[in-house]
Amino acid sequence: MKKITFLIALLFPVLLNAQSGKVMDNLKMDSKILKMERNYAVYLPPGYETSERSYPVLYLLHGATDNHTGWIQFGEVLHITDKAIQEGTATPMIIIMPDADTKVMGYFNVPDYNYEDFFFEEFIPHVEQKYRIKSTKRFRAVAGLSMGGGGSFMYGLRHPDMFSSACPLSAYVGPLTLEQADLSMKRRNPGITDAQVKSYFENYNALNLLAKADVEKVKSVRWYIDCGDDDFLYEGNSQMHIEMRKKEIPHEYRVRDGGHRWSYWRSALPEVLRFVSDSFHQN
Amino acid sequence: MKKITFLIALLFPVLLNAQSGKVMDNLKMDSKILKMERNYAVYLPPGYETSERSYPVLYLLHGATDNHTGWIQFGEVLHITDKAIQEGTATPMIIIMPDADTKVMGYFNVPDYNYEDFFFEEFIPHVEQKYRIKSTKRFRAVAGLSMGGGGSFMYGLRHPDMFSSACPLSAYVGPLTLEQADLSMKRRNPGITDAQVKSYFENYNALNLLAKADVEKVKSVRWYIDCGDDDFLYEGNSQMHIEMRKKEIPHEYRVRDGGHRWSYWRSALPEVLRFVSDSFHQN
Amino acid sequence: MKKITFLIALLFPVLLNAQSGKVMDNLKMDSKILKMERNYAVYLPPGYETSERSYPVLYLLHGATDNHTGWIQFGEVLHITDKAIQEGTATPMIIIMPDADTKVMGYFNVPDYNYEDFFFEEFIPHVEQKYRIKSTKRFRAVAGLSMGGGGSFMYGLRHPDMFSSACPLSAYVGPLTLEQADLSMKRRNPGITDAQVKSYFENYNALNLLAKADVEKVKSVRWYIDCGDDDFLYEGNSQMHIEMRKKEIPHEYRVRDGGHRWSYWRSALPEVLRFVSDSFHQN
Amino acid sequence: MKKITFLIALLFPVLLNAQSGKVMDNLKMDSKILKMERNYAVYLPPGYETSERSYPVLYLLHGATDNHTGWIQFGEVLHITDKAIQEGTATPMIIIMPDADTKVMGYFNVPDYNYEDFFFEEFIPHVEQKYRIKSTKRFRAVAGLSMGGGGSFMYGLRHPDMFSSACPLSAYVGPLTLEQADLSMKRRNPGITDAQVKSYFENYNALNLLAKADVEKVKSVRWYIDCGDDDFLYEGNSQMHIEMRKKEIPHEYRVRDGGHRWSYWRSALPEVLRFVSDSFHQN
Repeated sequence: MKKITFLIALLFPVLLNAQSGKVMDNLKMDSKILKMERNYAVYLPPGYETSERSYPVLYLLHGATDNHTGWIQFGEVLHITDKAIQEGTATPMIIIMPDADTKVMGYFNVPDYNYEDFFFEEFIPHVEQKYRIKSTKRFRAVAGLSMGGGGSFMYGLRHPDMFSSACPLSAYVGPLTLEQADLSMKRRNPGITDAQVKSYFENYNALNLLAKADVEKVKSVRWYIDCGDDDFLYEGNSQMHIEMRKKEIPHEYRVRDGGHRWSYWRSALPEVLRFVSDSFHQN
Repeated sequence: MKKITFLIALLFPVLLNAQSGKVMDNLKMDSKILKMERNYAVYLPPGYETSERSYPVLYLLHGATDNHTGWIQFGEVLHITDKAIQEGTATPMIIIMPDADTKVMGYFNVPDYNYEDFFFEEFIPHVEQKYRIKSTKRFRAVAGLSMGGGGSFMYGLRHPDMFSSACPLSAYVGPLTLEQADLSMKRRNPGITDAQVKSYFENYNALNLLAKADVEKVKSVRWYIDCGDDDFLYEGNSQMHIEMRKKEIPHEYRVRDGGHRWSYWRSALPEVLRFVSDSFHQN
Repeated sequence: MKKITFLIALLFPVLLNAQSGKVMDNLKMDSKILKMERNYAVYLPPGYETSERSYPVLYLLHGATDNHTGWIQFGEVLHITDKAIQEGTATPMIIIMPDADTKVMGYFNVPDYNYEDFFFEEFIPHVEQKYRIKSTKRFRAVAGLSMGGGGSFMYGLRHPDMFSSACPLSAYVGPLTLEQADLSMKRRNPGITDAQVKSYFENYNALNLLAKADVEKVKSVRWYIDCGDDDFLYEGNSQMHIEMRKKEIPHEYRVRDGGHRWSYWRSALPEVLRFVSDSFHQN
Repeated sequence: MKKITFLIALLFPVLLNAQSGKVMDNLKMDSKILKMERNYAVYLPPGYETSERSYPVLYLLHGATDNHTGWIQFGEVLHITDKAIQEGTATPMIIIMPDADTKVMGYFNVPDYNYEDFFFEEFIPHVEQKYRIKSTKRFRAVAGLSMGGGGSFMYGLRHPDMFSSACPLSAYVGPLTLEQADLSMKRRNPGITDAQVKSYFENYNALNLLAKADVEKVKSVRWYIDCGDDDFLYEGNSQMHIEMRKKEIPHEYRVRDGGHRWSYWRSALPEVLRFVSDSFHQN
């Protein structure tokens, strides 16, 4: 028996190379809140089918003009996560990729489209019941790019009890002025009232949210913020870094070489996986 | 010892399946247009069977005197693509290898053999329905060698709405003169008329096609052209480079050390996979 | 004898790698402008003594409380530059490290201490005549950390005709408000007038300089700006990034993991050498 | 043990010097033919000073707007050649870099500026007598970029008895039409006659020279031609490839990814050194 153990140990590195996770990009659920069907995609870690354990979860949000399949096709979530898990820089986790593709306003509540309510009241319960997910703050993280980076900021700031880490990449932090909010809201929703626009500006602009936030609660989330030096969203992210520093909210902040592109986000993903794993690992 | 062997034998196939793609070289479909059965081969990426996602597709064309099995047997498509996907230089994709082996004229329409019609009207719909393929221009590429390099040029130039990239390798760009066309067509089809020869020369010579093409449409395809310095097809490829530069059509062009040989094409394939993945990745 | 041969054979790989430049940290020159002697240090690239060529030059500025020996002792300029040259990421260059150590105001003109005049009128001519230095803008760069990062910003902004690149690291961009300037100037120079403080604030604050600069001239300098996410100087650097983006002045900007420490600057130096070499190399 | 230490101490300086070549960029000679002084630069291989052997020679020509220092400063000839010799891909050789910087016509004979005569009658004899150079065709090669690529083509075609190899990089093959020649000659030399322009066009256009050349003599030179796919000089080089293939003149031809830039030429130089060494090595 010792020999066998030895032989297997010898084979192990070879065999370990063979481990692969699994992605599904064609899942659906009915939403009562949205009164429509919503798509989503899932990454399951290597060995999910045969293991009998539960896993931490990362909600990974796509950007504008994209959908739930973006992180799989363009973001190489399967290859990158498999590799990070294999190398031990990330812990095995489940990744949930919702579809917020929309002509309206993405991840938030706007008139007749309460996506944020759907996300927290229907979607999270649905997937955390369907898959073997550890359903507590410690084991739940959110990350995303562009509009999904905005989602990560806002979900982390508005729901600090839900996530142990939040990782906005190349984030759209929201309209920088009320005028900008007015313009973009009314273009999409001609019937929207001034009061609704003002409410949206106050609730879905990361700088405004931060200004009125409970600092201790915001500190209970670990933050990883990354936005390239050539990204057109440089201003909002630079301002968030300044304001979080002034409020002494710990956060990792990176500005690397690059713009608003998938090549940037693919090279960000390994660091995001490492960062959220630090919470899951209880370092 | 038997036990060990048994244990390893048991472990091996499962584990090996998890990291390797799969090739099938004995597939068939009936063509109404050609009134015959046509063969084809397929490469499926690692994890295809268990994943529930869809994939981009590369149509990979063989050369004269060869058939749909060439890229598998001589081109090492399985090993090279598995390696590129594992290293992250290529995204998981499905590769379709049709059979245009023929005494007549390969990938194009000639009297009584409308292969091009078959390819676009029957073959693409057949395989894109049979496999989980993303069926839009962005996620579809074509590449090939020699006669199949000609196919890649002509399909890209004549159907720019169908492919996001085209990669002619050591391409036969078509008869360089009407006399050449006349000679070769009449040798194969004694009954062919002069008008038919002239039409063929105009429609299946890449230089002629380029001269009359809608430049903006040709630019919507990304081009990767590679032909060795010892290749007998040097002239047509050099001319295509000159003419595409004069029309300011972006294209990658490589002349490496080598001739019209499988060793050249095997060393070209990783770059082709990387290049088509750049489109699939939305860099 | 065999032993010796063996020993030498063993040493050989080490010796082959052993090409080294040379540093001198005890050089002096008399300044008529400052009416005192000033120290400086020099790095000469491998082969300087035997070659008969001339070299590009990098002026590398130290921070507050330090002097011309800092980049040698704490910054490992010899080891890091030798390695970069050996690996081909940097071109052989001369590095000049002046001493601006001072209880007064570092690299700039303040009452009774016109260091900036000294630097451009006496120091540069002195060293560029003493060593085989190519004395044109293309082949001259400036970099520095903290107070020396401020020097790099101010020298690049005020003397854009002198440098092809400027690389402020963890830069002190100057007092952010007139009040700050007032406080810090008067603490060091009790006799200073309000007008002198105001003039200093306008001439030695990078944001003020940028606001009134000739944008085309500023663009003629290539910029590389780097400041860690834990650095206490985060605000000025973030603001410079925002303002340079708004003025469309190309610049590389990096925020990496770290604070105001030598470990950060040692890991920044290879990139600085690569960046200034890009100008020297005429890529 | 003391002996060993002593021996190593003794060897150290020798060994340190023994692995690096040496460059000089400030050499001069008087030309009777040109009635002026001409600059040049030299690379001497590692160990040149202490060895008592003679070496093969590569004449390495710069491009327009540059001079004899270009291959040293921008081309990294010292680092790249040292590395190639150390790795054994190139044989130790002397590299001579002349200065053809000129408002007139570079490497060729034009009215009142017979540079080609100077080069073959004065310059080669001067340097091959001054340095320990093997002065026969086998051990002499020429390479260059842009205008110096044109020099390499023309010197190889017009003086095939002088060089065992010629390596034009991103070569200007000469005016492609008589009209082009006329325009460029008359702009530089208002007094030039039509006959002189015609003569120049016939003698300094590589395609014309090839058309009338003694093919066997041209074959006695080994050719290495390299021009990037983004280079504006694509047409002349593509045409030279076509015409040399048609005349069955063996030649290596490369089209790599890149334009008319030093980064391209730096990555070409190792291959040039390997290629000319193949002749020097008598493979």
